[in-house]
Amino acid sequence: MSRDPYPTDGADPPDTLADEAACMRRALELAARGEGAVEPNPMVGCVVARRTDAGAYRVVGEGWHARFGGPHAEAAALAQAGDKARGATLFVTLEPCAHTGKTPPCVEAILHAGVERVFAAVRDPDPRVDGGGFERLRREGVACEVGQGGAEALRLLAPYLKLQQRGLPWVIAKWAMTLDGKIAAAGGDSQWISGDESRKQVHRLRGVVDAVVVGPGTLAADDPLLTARPPGPRVPLRIVVGLTRPGPPTRRLFDSLADGPVLAAVGADYPASDAEALRSRGVEVLVTEGQDLGGIAACTLEELGRRRLTNVLVEGGGGLLGALFDRDAIDEARVFLAPKVIGGAGAPGPVAGTGLERIADARVFEPLSCEQFGDDLCVTTRRRPPL
Amino acid sequence: MSRDPYPTDGADPPDTLADEAACMRRALELAARGEGAVEPNPMVGCVVARRTDAGAYRVVGEGWHARFGGPHAEAAALAQAGDKARGATLFVTLEPCAHTGKTPPCVEAILHAGVERVFAAVRDPDPRVDGGGFERLRREGVACEVGQGGAEALRLLAPYLKLQQRGLPWVIAKWAMTLDGKIAAAGGDSQWISGDESRKQVHRLRGVVDAVVVGPGTLAADDPLLTARPPGPRVPLRIVVGLTRPGPPTRRLFDSLADGPVLAAVGADYPASDAEALRSRGVEVLVTEGQDLGGIAACTLEELGRRRLTNVLVEGGGGLLGALFDRDAIDEARVFLAPKVIGGAGAPGPVAGTGLERIADARVFEPLSCEQFGDDLCVTTRRRPPL
Repeated sequence: MSRDPYPTDGADPPDTLADEAACMRRALELAARGEGAVEPNPMVGCVVARRTDAGAYRVVGEGWHARFGGPHAEAAALAQAGDKARGATLFVTLEPCAHTGKTPPCVEAILHAGVERVFAAVRDPDPRVDGGGFERLRREGVACEVGQGGAEALRLLAPYLKLQQRGLPWVIAKWAMTLDGKIAAAGGDSQWISGDESRKQVHRLRGVVDAVVVGPGTLAADDPLLTARPPGPRVPLRIVVGLTRPGPPTRRLFDSLADGPVLAAVGADYPASDAEALRSRGVEVLVTEGQDLGGIAACTLEELGRRRLTNVLVEGGGGLLGALFDRDAIDEARVFLAPKVIGGAGAPGPVAGTGLERIADARVFEPLSCEQFGDDLCVTTRRRPPL
Repeated sequence: MSRDPYPTDGADPPDTLADEAACMRRALELAARGEGAVEPNPMVGCVVARRTDAGAYRVVGEGWHARFGGPHAEAAALAQAGDKARGATLFVTLEPCAHTGKTPPCVEAILHAGVERVFAAVRDPDPRVDGGGFERLRREGVACEVGQGGAEALRLLAPYLKLQQRGLPWVIAKWAMTLDGKIAAAGGDSQWISGDESRKQVHRLRGVVDAVVVGPGTLAADDPLLTARPPGPRVPLRIVVGLTRPGPPTRRLFDSLADGPVLAAVGADYPASDAEALRSRGVEVLVTEGQDLGGIAACTLEELGRRRLTNVLVEGGGGLLGALFDRDAIDEARVFLAPKVIGGAGAPGPVAGTGLERIADARVFEPLSCEQFGDDLCVTTRRRPPL
């Protein structure tokens, strides 16, 4: 295999894959490498492979969409495959584009390379593509099959699709709680529920999302910086939603503009002098029409959607997460469970707000994974059915 | 290998094990088969094996303590090994007994069989043994090594040791909670948080413990039977702690005496007429000196210890678990985490009570396992350091 002109994460690429499913799984693995670097573009991975006499596939090229504005996955994989793409099969996690955007259309590259067959996991709902890629390929005699690895590809694409279809960012709620479901002791003490390795994982997450959001209670109680330490591929916009206190708040967040932008989303009744004080320190103040925390949060998400932010990480506290939950605005929950018990009828839980009346009405979140970080567990779940 | 005269769970026994550690792991597996059938005796497993030229061990006998009053693990394994025990090595999870109890002393059987070497995971702190087994074996020229598999053996023996050393049963707290740490909606609705497979697992647990305990709130709200369905090796004593309501309560628990005994533990101020009404239905009423729920619970545990109950399963609610937690009386927590969110600042969590003031003081529970039951996770943890 020729030298890979694109960055890899160090693992050797496979030489041979058993079947179409294995090729698509590999393409999905490659796609995920773009997390935090390609948004608001979709993560896409691609494998170009030649069928062997035994029915397996010999990989001749691999690629993924590695950064916004950079080459698409197909172009990268075809460049690596070179002449070996002629007569080969191309596996891609999303329908190849048929339009010229920041890069030339992928279908033309596929045709030019002489690829014989294309497997795509899902059709691209982008109105500029939307089946047009398949149509053009088929017209030129390239067989196209759609659906292999579709469920996994949709999971990977869900934030991209939500932004495209609903104009809203994907909302990831993250909380750390004790074994008895508390995010703080009854008196408010909350540091630290989770262990070092969990907190490192949260910093990793901050470095791949477009925004990190907290409510006013968390800003007051924890005085967080909300930066990713160490930085990831993306510098998140740091947002506090629903400031109400009189007077310019003295918080570390507002003294850390050198580490990245900060936005304060407030209601219409927020004092103009306080807004001015924040602005003079470099903080962007977004005055929304929201009447309460949930309303301000909803307006903020709409604005973030207009700005084409794909993923936002909401780190609490319970008030903000409750307000978002009451509006069914949480797409994904990442729960760090620390094996300790704090007890206390008055100790707060992670999701306050009004809540639902009956357990039968509880919103179901599909478990995607359960990982261990130190002694903590991290359970990643997604709202089912999708919002 | 000769035919096993003792019940097995169907899995074929191993022929050859790689080393001493593997032999002891096998003995520990065998020991665990006695759960629910041997208490207040300890669970014990035993492997008799002959060392091969290659340094591995060929198994010639296996056994475990299978029921209270039945043969000890060593006797069972030696019976299976027959003549092949001569010159063999015996692996046992607990020091062999040197005294005559319900069965003849195991050390005599070991000597009689001609075993050459004994590996024991832990020394038996029972004052009737307490090193005496090793002493007698060594005096007769049998080499004894102690400690292999000791940590795992101590985990298995912890309830037995607690009862023996402190005269108190092992307290297993079980709760099912949502992803946001709630055991009910704000209005009180609680059925069902966890799924079918989790609930089956709870029934399995009920069938291996000596008692199942709830507080008055759970009795009132859920009207539970607390039976193991289907029954396990043990019929648990079903206990409600802290009844205070005036008038004889009409609950299914008190109409199910045919399914097993029921005990109501109350404070001294419980009305005598109500106690009489319960007794007339066959319910045992234990009048304790406890002044509040925690006090009544503590007195009840002491009484259960006097009766030599080894394991009690406390199924809540939050009030009782909080009262026990506040007294640091929970040894093990089994938490079923259901991937759903109910929300609500007023929705109750699993452990109420007073709680601790600072997160740094939170009681640490060592995670032992994380299993999946349907979409739920079950995290099993133990208080660390041991109580």
